[in-house]
Amino acid sequence: MELLKERIRRDGRVRAGGVLKVDGFLNHQMDVELFAEIGNEFRRRFSGDEVTKILTIEASGIGIACLTALAFHVPAVFAKKTQTKNIDADVYRTQVESFTHGKTYDIIVSKEYLRPNDRVLLIDDFLANGKALEGLARLVKDAGAVLVGAGIVIEKGFQPGGERLRREGIHLESLAIIDSMDEKTGEIRFR
Amino acid sequence: MELLKERIRRDGRVRAGGVLKVDGFLNHQMDVELFAEIGNEFRRRFSGDEVTKILTIEASGIGIACLTALAFHVPAVFAKKTQTKNIDADVYRTQVESFTHGKTYDIIVSKEYLRPNDRVLLIDDFLANGKALEGLARLVKDAGAVLVGAGIVIEKGFQPGGERLRREGIHLESLAIIDSMDEKTGEIRFR
Repeated sequence: MELLKERIRRDGRVRAGGVLKVDGFLNHQMDVELFAEIGNEFRRRFSGDEVTKILTIEASGIGIACLTALAFHVPAVFAKKTQTKNIDADVYRTQVESFTHGKTYDIIVSKEYLRPNDRVLLIDDFLANGKALEGLARLVKDAGAVLVGAGIVIEKGFQPGGERLRREGIHLESLAIIDSMDEKTGEIRFR
Repeated sequence: MELLKERIRRDGRVRAGGVLKVDGFLNHQMDVELFAEIGNEFRRRFSGDEVTKILTIEASGIGIACLTALAFHVPAVFAKKTQTKNIDADVYRTQVESFTHGKTYDIIVSKEYLRPNDRVLLIDDFLANGKALEGLARLVKDAGAVLVGAGIVIEKGFQPGGERLRREGIHLESLAIIDSMDEKTGEIRFR
């Protein structure tokens, strides 16, 4: 998606350790008009898939998921992160390992909002190691729903998540895939 | 806002301890078409205020804030909750007490995204004790920006936040104000 790549080139900042800061338009301050374009692009890429629900994870995926849901005319659901371990029969629950924060947390979705007849599109802002997306995919599977695919705004192509998910047969659409970044020059190379 | 009140009557569930569950359309599963109507309603109520930015707090405010920002054609920013206490010169920071979770947490916003020339509208899904909204208002003040007002989807009129904020002179618009709820009959009375 050219509009997005231009925006990343203009406003993204490369930091040490493979970090790309895009919090001016994507995940702290949010350019919602760009999000609407992103939603339309996901709608185009997953047209014909009869998506009934958008699923994301709090917090930075929520805005993009909402504008994508608007393009599909379906509800969005966000999985909640939780550190409580209590057994709750009303939720689907799985564990996600976070490389960024170096810890493990549970994510939950109410069973009311993921149904066996749902056709679910996962949406997230970033894909790096793919652990969050795999967790969401497990929740969909636990619900007996159909996983239509996953729409990602920025994929770090130099990290293993994207390749692994594609190998598992998940229809993955990333609007910008970064092959390399140079923290000295700030140069970003897209696939 | 009649459409919203009808929805609360239909899908809201009253629980013990003054809890209203609206997670089927507001803060877990999200009816984004309703959010678009809510955004338009806030746009109508704060027209002429020259809003330049929508500010909310993660996580459940984000979807409503995004659709409101779309109606205003301005960016949305969400304050991040954090438990780390490290001094960071790049952020505005304040402490918020949570009655629901019985603990205190910090919220932060990058100084880049709240500027002295901003005219800020706060958006949140619920108003009860008002601590989160007051925290957001302090961040706006710290930035030297103008606080235009606050748009709330559901105000619990039987809790003290709304009255206190109005007394402080904040232009507060709540789309549904609940005066009482009966957990036995499920009846909800709006102001």
